[in-house]
Amino acid sequence: MEGTTKKVLDIIKHHNSIVIFGHTLPDGDCYGSQIALREILSATFKDKKVYAVGSGLPLLFPRLGEMDIVNDETIKNSLAILVDVSDFPLVEDKRIALAQTYIKIDHHHESNPFIHEKIMDHGVIATAELIARIAFANSFVITKKAAEAIFLGIVTDSGRFVYEPTRKETFEIVARLFDYGLDMKAIYDTIYQTEENQLKYKGFLLSNYKKTRHKVIYCYANKNDYLPLRLKFAYASSQVNVLANIKGSPIFALFTQNENGGLRVELRSNGIPIRDIAVKHGGGGHANAAGVRMEKGGYKEAMAIVKDLDNLAKEKTYNVGK
Amino acid sequence: MEGTTKKVLDIIKHHNSIVIFGHTLPDGDCYGSQIALREILSATFKDKKVYAVGSGLPLLFPRLGEMDIVNDETIKNSLAILVDVSDFPLVEDKRIALAQTYIKIDHHHESNPFIHEKIMDHGVIATAELIARIAFANSFVITKKAAEAIFLGIVTDSGRFVYEPTRKETFEIVARLFDYGLDMKAIYDTIYQTEENQLKYKGFLLSNYKKTRHKVIYCYANKNDYLPLRLKFAYASSQVNVLANIKGSPIFALFTQNENGGLRVELRSNGIPIRDIAVKHGGGGHANAAGVRMEKGGYKEAMAIVKDLDNLAKEKTYNVGK
Repeated sequence: MEGTTKKVLDIIKHHNSIVIFGHTLPDGDCYGSQIALREILSATFKDKKVYAVGSGLPLLFPRLGEMDIVNDETIKNSLAILVDVSDFPLVEDKRIALAQTYIKIDHHHESNPFIHEKIMDHGVIATAELIARIAFANSFVITKKAAEAIFLGIVTDSGRFVYEPTRKETFEIVARLFDYGLDMKAIYDTIYQTEENQLKYKGFLLSNYKKTRHKVIYCYANKNDYLPLRLKFAYASSQVNVLANIKGSPIFALFTQNENGGLRVELRSNGIPIRDIAVKHGGGGHANAAGVRMEKGGYKEAMAIVKDLDNLAKEKTYNVGK
Repeated sequence: MEGTTKKVLDIIKHHNSIVIFGHTLPDGDCYGSQIALREILSATFKDKKVYAVGSGLPLLFPRLGEMDIVNDETIKNSLAILVDVSDFPLVEDKRIALAQTYIKIDHHHESNPFIHEKIMDHGVIATAELIARIAFANSFVITKKAAEAIFLGIVTDSGRFVYEPTRKETFEIVARLFDYGLDMKAIYDTIYQTEENQLKYKGFLLSNYKKTRHKVIYCYANKNDYLPLRLKFAYASSQVNVLANIKGSPIFALFTQNENGGLRVELRSNGIPIRDIAVKHGGGGHANAAGVRMEKGGYKEAMAIVKDLDNLAKEKTYNVGK
């Protein structure tokens, strides 16, 4: 990474105005990386103007800072840095197209090789971890807000130190953040407040899921199950992990019907590849996390998938010789 | 700590047989500390016999090792080390009384000053953290099992890096454990398997809790709510944290009636002291975590406490000038 880092830092050093872009629907790592980089570059290079654009994570604004409003002219005359986003189509503020020069700092796999200078490492749990490494390696100034923004990125993308690749370096970086004033509890207190309607929906999932003969766990949520709780389809259909880690049930799934008769299917597993079943039904994804989006679909379509999952579970159970 | 550590280590060095004791109802930190210490002392001092007694944490036995069966004679002729337990009455294996010499390594506050040699620091999140520090400081041999047992202790007592005092040193120690072969995922996979009936009970709490006028969250669980799920009263009545972190509700409580008409009350808060209310109703505890056990009590008694909590919440709401 050292060679590419030097090139990227040279480009940064040559620009006096910098705009930092993130992805659509910004999460903790996206917002945290934007804020951390803005803080670090502003504090290290006093003569530079550094902006972060996009919608950010409003619940953290009082503590870590708001997003900047910049005009088109500024973007035209600035270096654009994409953080936590792999390519232009995924950038939230489409005015990225106005920029003359751009670079990227990211930990996602690239679907389309990004042709400009970049610092990339998909072996890290969060883009914020990459930013911390750059700051440490170059003795950049790390403010308290930057330290907390880095922590936010790491803690949200790692599901609080549990998802892979959370590793030795992740813990080392977090330990060093305390030297810059990290108040862990303040960040936790903000991000772990749960909205009551989200909790009630969780209760619904835990009280209404079903288990097949071969122990596939699934829940079917209709619009009447989440709309009265004032929850949006996007949220309701994303909660498959509520059904994770049930002993003896390595395969689990959430089926959510939207207001227009469409169906979102989220399939997960601990070890058993389920991607093929998603593909068979018109979807795709990873070996242990896959999904399908149907324009039209409901209970019947969901049950066809459940049947396939159950057959897969049956096969795997026999294979291990139970 | 250095002076006391030296005295304790001298005592350990002078004994060729050592039995490590833990507390009743051993948790991850108790079992983890016992295993870690047994592993470290056995690997460092090849001529010593080191045993760990008690019921341990059976779900980890296949990975980290079982508990030892020792006879009374062995205990009489051994050094006894209490880990993660502050005083004799709390030790699980009552044969601790047979030992001639004993020392303690613990992070709990002492209710009754323990008169023998000890290594104590209630500023650490887990006893396992203390054991790691002793091993690092003295260049003791740390086996892979010891590293994983230390991780287990830290991760369980800290609620996975969230409870105070999780701090800089906690993260530094975890980072170092990777050098000894820590497989984080293997430990997570074992401890985060949830029993289905526990999940269903969680669903019950999330679907059936109530909120008072001033936003105190509470749930009343009757024996018919947990016995059909094959859950024990001890487990059912311990799940108050399912109701934690609800936005706008810093006070929450769980009331559980047992099979014999007794009542266990668990009160929690984020910042507002609730201990006085526990004391008023015959209980006690900490400022933000208190409880009451009633030999006889049910819904009526629970509602009297809810009323007091609601009045407290009302007062605090006015105080912050809402």
